[in-house]
Amino acid sequence: MSDTSQTRAAVVDLIGALAYGQLTAFSQLAADAHLAPTLAARAELSRLAVTEFGRYESLRARLEEMGVVPEEAMEPFRVAIDAFHERTAPSDWLEGLVKAYVGEGIGADFYREVSAFVGSDIHALVSDVVRDEGQAGVVVREVKAAMEIDPRVAGRLALYGRRMVGEALSQAQRVAADREPLASLLIGPKADLTALVAMFGRLTEAHSRRMARLGLAA
Amino acid sequence: MSDTSQTRAAVVDLIGALAYGQLTAFSQLAADAHLAPTLAARAELSRLAVTEFGRYESLRARLEEMGVVPEEAMEPFRVAIDAFHERTAPSDWLEGLVKAYVGEGIGADFYREVSAFVGSDIHALVSDVVRDEGQAGVVVREVKAAMEIDPRVAGRLALYGRRMVGEALSQAQRVAADREPLASLLIGPKADLTALVAMFGRLTEAHSRRMARLGLAA
Repeated sequence: MSDTSQTRAAVVDLIGALAYGQLTAFSQLAADAHLAPTLAARAELSRLAVTEFGRYESLRARLEEMGVVPEEAMEPFRVAIDAFHERTAPSDWLEGLVKAYVGEGIGADFYREVSAFVGSDIHALVSDVVRDEGQAGVVVREVKAAMEIDPRVAGRLALYGRRMVGEALSQAQRVAADREPLASLLIGPKADLTALVAMFGRLTEAHSRRMARLGLAA
Repeated sequence: MSDTSQTRAAVVDLIGALAYGQLTAFSQLAADAHLAPTLAARAELSRLAVTEFGRYESLRARLEEMGVVPEEAMEPFRVAIDAFHERTAPSDWLEGLVKAYVGEGIGADFYREVSAFVGSDIHALVSDVVRDEGQAGVVVREVKAAMEIDPRVAGRLALYGRRMVGEALSQAQRVAADREPLASLLIGPKADLTALVAMFGRLTEAHSRRMARLGLAA
């Protein structure tokens, strides 16, 4: 593959993975909303789900502009992303909230980092799609309230957060092994190993900050 | 209750029931979308779910304009609407489609009819919320394609359609017995029995037309 077609393939991969991630986050959040203890919280989480769908629509439109069939661009990431969700299925409302907040956060940071390697317009699109929509408020409030009632909740949720990071890494490795253009964006000439190590450092740090904000150990 | 406060209570009931119905239709469709055999169909059904949520938001805004807490207006209809969905849970993708199309259709006709009794601005709001968003296209296409592959599908889906109507009626009766202002809108001085019978006639007719469009017996 030439340098340009390699970059193009990596960009399609990046947007396809992100689009499938958003479509799945939509279903996941909409389903989790059903676990909400109050109608107000249910509407709030449903509203977040709708936001995710809006992002999916922008990514889908971008793929179409590039002359790519969106479903074909998303397909290669289906197994890994579905596996992530199956293995981190929240067992209750609180885990659903932690997943929404921490899971979205890890994903957003990752996509923002990767997109920095593929040109400023794609970086802008991705940053726009994954910007924090302020869901932190409702999550922090609900999680802290639950910990006040029962402090043991903190240990269980911290463990769940760690499980989520482990699954995310293992699925990301699976994708990297499979998708050569996307992987070479990260480890190719443009991004040396030092940059890669620094990137993982930033991702871990941001994750710890998010957990701390919820009052949880990373 | 005075005539005006009785009408106001009925309007709040009507909008509250409709709002809860839309919020629930959103979760239901989002969950059913996950059963879709293709990514394209999944995105299409998710898009419909997002439309339902938009309608919920208009109704919610209207309740707030009226000085009503939306959650309080929705609460009385929670049991009946949840029961309807539990008892008509689709067992596969095709039943999910029939439910989306036929179930939404019955609901929309009903709300449009009832709102005709409560003043033109509410009627306009409700008609706007429940207007056909063209979901017919994808449903008709998928159901007909499935029947071509296996004609026995028609019998099963027709039965499912009848079960849905039965459940809708039985839950509507439950609500009518409970919510006096709403019920008296229908059977009070403004709407006599002849009008009520005519209304049920129109509802049944519209339902049969929808089933016929899917190639199914009502």
